Amino acid sequence: MLREAIELFNLQGYDATSMGDLASRLGFTKSALYHHVPSKEHLLQLALDEALDNLAEAVAAARADSSVSALDRLRRAVRGSVEVLIGHLPAVTLLLRVRGNSPAELAALKRRRELDAQLAQLVAEAAAEGGIRTDIPPDLISRLLFGMVNSLTEWVRPSGRISPDTLADALTAIAFEGLLAP
Amino acid sequence: MLREAIELFNLQGYDATSMGDLASRLGFTKSALYHHVPSKEHLLQLALDEALDNLAEAVAAARADSSVSALDRLRRAVRGSVEVLIGHLPAVTLLLRVRGNSPAELAALKRRRELDAQLAQLVAEAAAEGGIRTDIPPDLISRLLFGMVNSLTEWVRPSGRISPDTLADALTAIAFEGLLAP
Repeated sequence: MLREAIELFNLQGYDATSMGDLASRLGFTKSALYHHVPSKEHLLQLALDEALDNLAEAVAAARADSSVSALDRLRRAVRGSVEVLIGHLPAVTLLLRVRGNSPAELAALKRRRELDAQLAQLVAEAAAEGGIRTDIPPDLISRLLFGMVNSLTEWVRPSGRISPDTLADALTAIAFEGLLAP
Repeated sequence: MLREAIELFNLQGYDATSMGDLASRLGFTKSALYHHVPSKEHLLQLALDEALDNLAEAVAAARADSSVSALDRLRRAVRGSVEVLIGHLPAVTLLLRVRGNSPAELAALKRRRELDAQLAQLVAEAAAEGGIRTDIPPDLISRLLFGMVNSLTEWVRPSGRISPDTLADALTAIAFEGLLAP
């Protein structure tokens, strides 16, 4: 039911989707749907939690590995984010479209900002350690780098022919080594 | 009137915005609004044309400069796209959210695909010429590179403190040279 709800929210927008739309899609009556789900916002909450819990776990795992350089922790955070994004594509797509129109959305935006701050901190650590360039502010690097990661939701399809590993390799190669021919 | 319409479409979604909403925002009656504008879709069309015409012009200018290498034409296309994106931020933001729910949206998606193909072609030329790495397929490079460009719409504000030039410099430096410390 949550899968169908997320798909419908992504297809026609959360605000434009009614519980009636969802009931039709599932072949339920509206009252049967309300028997299972207290509200549309409850489904949104579950979807946003799915995306945020997995992203938070990937970032925490990358940050916790103190045996490697900050640069390697940053690489791991990028790769982990790509993997979560592809593994939980509908939920992350929904998360990235949230604009703060309800308490659940505002709470999700707050958690996103916390994650963004942790990622910017990783970038700053990698710069301080001398692993990455220091001529661009770490905050700006972080926005552009994870902007590229998040842009995957615009075109990657779960059944696509490019594997998550290939995508993560290409993205980290471009981001860290650049496009110029060696 | 077009500015207000684009802002409202971006704020609450095109599908969820009625001509009544727009009339309220402008302080018009609905019939006064219809006196000036034949339909909501007409406003969408104008907004999408604004974004697409300017993007197409920037890409065409970059491609037309045969006095420089394909790599330099690609750099110019990236920089030109960043400039259009910031200079026409509301219209480009609306364009990037279009999902094909109407004839105007389908036509815009078609024009976007044509532009994407031209950009992918520029990437392929730069790779063939030996200017950029060849271990990642040009199509994938193009998606990731312009994914980073397009992600600017998620956080750049027209009144922001980072100049378009600084943004374009940072983005092209990361994309072409990479993040690793020299």
